[in-house]
Amino acid sequence: MRIAFIGLGTMGAPMAGRLLDAGFDVIVHNRTRERERALVERGATAAASPAEAAAHADVIVTMVSDTPDVEAILFGPDGVAQGARRDAIVVEMSTIAPEAVRAMGARLAAQGVALLDAPVSGGSEGAQQGTLSIMVGGDAADLERVRTVLEVFGRTITHVGPSGAGQVAKAMNQVIIAGTYAAVAEGLALGMAAGIDVEAAHRALQGGAAGSWGLTHRGPNMLDNTYPLGFRVRLHRKDLGIALDTAAALGVPIPLAAYVAQLETGLVKRGYGDEDVSAIARVVREQAGLEER
Amino acid sequence: MRIAFIGLGTMGAPMAGRLLDAGFDVIVHNRTRERERALVERGATAAASPAEAAAHADVIVTMVSDTPDVEAILFGPDGVAQGARRDAIVVEMSTIAPEAVRAMGARLAAQGVALLDAPVSGGSEGAQQGTLSIMVGGDAADLERVRTVLEVFGRTITHVGPSGAGQVAKAMNQVIIAGTYAAVAEGLALGMAAGIDVEAAHRALQGGAAGSWGLTHRGPNMLDNTYPLGFRVRLHRKDLGIALDTAAALGVPIPLAAYVAQLETGLVKRGYGDEDVSAIARVVREQAGLEER
Repeated sequence: MRIAFIGLGTMGAPMAGRLLDAGFDVIVHNRTRERERALVERGATAAASPAEAAAHADVIVTMVSDTPDVEAILFGPDGVAQGARRDAIVVEMSTIAPEAVRAMGARLAAQGVALLDAPVSGGSEGAQQGTLSIMVGGDAADLERVRTVLEVFGRTITHVGPSGAGQVAKAMNQVIIAGTYAAVAEGLALGMAAGIDVEAAHRALQGGAAGSWGLTHRGPNMLDNTYPLGFRVRLHRKDLGIALDTAAALGVPIPLAAYVAQLETGLVKRGYGDEDVSAIARVVREQAGLEER
Repeated sequence: MRIAFIGLGTMGAPMAGRLLDAGFDVIVHNRTRERERALVERGATAAASPAEAAAHADVIVTMVSDTPDVEAILFGPDGVAQGARRDAIVVEMSTIAPEAVRAMGARLAAQGVALLDAPVSGGSEGAQQGTLSIMVGGDAADLERVRTVLEVFGRTITHVGPSGAGQVAKAMNQVIIAGTYAAVAEGLALGMAAGIDVEAAHRALQGGAAGSWGLTHRGPNMLDNTYPLGFRVRLHRKDLGIALDTAAALGVPIPLAAYVAQLETGLVKRGYGDEDVSAIARVVREQAGLEER
């Protein structure tokens, strides 16, 4: 199977590398062309544009930052739509708006090209180790056509519904992370302000009903007030923007997520956008006068 | 070791039973005296008042609902303070205000009686099975004096600081549960409104950074919109009241917990107070027009 991989950033580059290691025939393209070189040295073929990358591919994977980037890659000049063969399948793995991905799917379908939305969670570490969780929207039969490809990227591949559903599931993920991390930050700030042994309390709380991945794996960041990556605040803020727009269009109030988005807006403005999203606790600590322990 | 156990409710009755099973000499007292009978049939001695229960005990355990109940048991007419021997130790396992427990400890200390605050998490199931998590505030040496008793009740016994610290840790627990459950409810409501396969999305999200005890064990309640116990909304609301007062006194803003407390206030008013606390999702669903799926 021939695979075009477009978007060789923090996520895309290791994912394309894993395809090469797995023995796939890989064509790579990136807007900043130098990023193709390392993969070409490992056996990939470089393509000058998305259209050229798509021209000889059975599967076209896109992994970039935001909705406009995907629009440009698919439908811009020399875009995928210009080059893709009938019966090719596009796997859109960026986190973008569910509405947008549905519209893209309809446009591609008109020329016989299928599209799956398949956003991931698990971060750059998951991309390197092939342990991403992949949430897939689109036709279930199309998913079966590319399952062997997705298995190179992730351990859990879940079909969650028709086109756009993968993006909705990713939005759910980011909404839950927002409130959960903020809740952990509130609880820990209370303990710190009271002067109890918060490390001991943190251990005690992990096994019970207050337990979460965030408490276990990001609680220590919050106690130390240092936020190594992880997943960037500014990307989580971008994803919450998508979730809030989607929720508003559906008439679903999500006040906790909306509140946390405001905290993140301030963090980005103040230069903390490249810290881990657990930096939400910075604000919670500051509001309690706990900047320094 | 002779143990007085005062408060034979949903939590206290199975805990006193476990002490009998473990071979301890147990004196029981409950405001509604009939509740003593089942334990007397299993070998406990009934006492007519907290003072009488305390008179012959090395350790006095209290397990009731709220601060005023504990006040009455310890310092009311025929209270523990009237009967307790010098060198006795009171283990206060109810969830009450940290400030109040510190004051109680000081009063008892004046007559040579020690006090530990040792609130629990793990619910009635944990009480029955001896799997509670116990967060202990007070003198570490006093904890060692009663550790064999606490081991009958719980699997994790964590000393978290001086008098009142156990109650602070419990408040942290309830604050984190509030925001985490509400975040899960928001995420699931978004998926339901979008019409994706939310059961599949729920499975996919559990293993990642959005994962929590609440998502795994209470998400299904929220998807079904049925909330079997569990831990009662009205008791969680009571505990959040303690947490909010404590946080306010310390100058710690906890807006997520405050918001969730408002939702719970409405739930209690409308007759949902005896449902599990995951019923927070009732309101989140209603606000999104998702009452019925």
